[in-house]
Amino acid sequence: MLKGILSVLLVLVTLSSAMGKPEKTTPKKEKRIPQTLSRGWGDQLIWAQTYEEALFWSRSKNKPLMIIFHLEDCPHSQALKKAFAEDKDIQKLADDDFVILNLVYETTDKHLSPDGQYVPRILFVDPSMTVRADITGRYANRLYAYEPADMKLLLSNMQRALKFLKTEL
Amino acid sequence: MLKGILSVLLVLVTLSSAMGKPEKTTPKKEKRIPQTLSRGWGDQLIWAQTYEEALFWSRSKNKPLMIIFHLEDCPHSQALKKAFAEDKDIQKLADDDFVILNLVYETTDKHLSPDGQYVPRILFVDPSMTVRADITGRYANRLYAYEPADMKLLLSNMQRALKFLKTEL
Repeated sequence: MLKGILSVLLVLVTLSSAMGKPEKTTPKKEKRIPQTLSRGWGDQLIWAQTYEEALFWSRSKNKPLMIIFHLEDCPHSQALKKAFAEDKDIQKLADDDFVILNLVYETTDKHLSPDGQYVPRILFVDPSMTVRADITGRYANRLYAYEPADMKLLLSNMQRALKFLKTEL
Repeated sequence: MLKGILSVLLVLVTLSSAMGKPEKTTPKKEKRIPQTLSRGWGDQLIWAQTYEEALFWSRSKNKPLMIIFHLEDCPHSQALKKAFAEDKDIQKLADDDFVILNLVYETTDKHLSPDGQYVPRILFVDPSMTVRADITGRYANRLYAYEPADMKLLLSNMQRALKFLKTEL
């Protein structure tokens, strides 16, 4: 189990050695800006902190969960974040009808990486805790990747996740 | 596995039905304050978001991990938070020598609840990913609970966690 967690985490290490916590070279006296759960993906949205919390809210509110895997120093993640945060339709639908979670570390649940651990990728999980691997983006080699130009597709996929909810549950 | 997660989460539900996400009765137009990872336990400290992330940082920085389990609507948690945030020695030691994580949801790792899932409680984990169940507070019936008056004991326990690090690893 411990080795499992480590191996999952180490996948991201080579990609992310410069991200995350500032190094101690930062002058101690400098006032830090408190870290937010949104990490810039929508400061006005209410984000779950952990996968466990998100699953609980999804189940108790009967709302689908949208999980965004990203990295702070990945330009594709940054570009997608900007488009996502600026898209009013996506922000509103996320606020009204989804439980949302953004993560810079992988979880131990392999269902959340159906075709590998890459960033950025977006997965939907329904309140029965089933990962909706059938809701995919535009790219055959990275099924859950989105680019800034794909916001309409992402919105439509969010609507699909809601439709599944009504017709299947 | 899924049922396991749920049962873990449900332990907290009865305690926490009023906490977490504001209900939708909040006026939509009201500007929300972005949620922070610190949740008031030290806005100037750098907090891990998830247990997986915290374990990674603990291992890669060779620093012990301190995990605080708490609830927003628990008066004991709130009182401890105030004492913790205002204690300069604890804040400095946490900033310099610890990886820190505060959680309002339980993880699936049972090692983090050696004598049950209650709040507030504080556990130490060393970089070898061993939960230091031997570092306890003052109360025999809740070994990992601390009260605001226990800040000296908590500081001393943090120093113990660091000492273990040097002598045992």
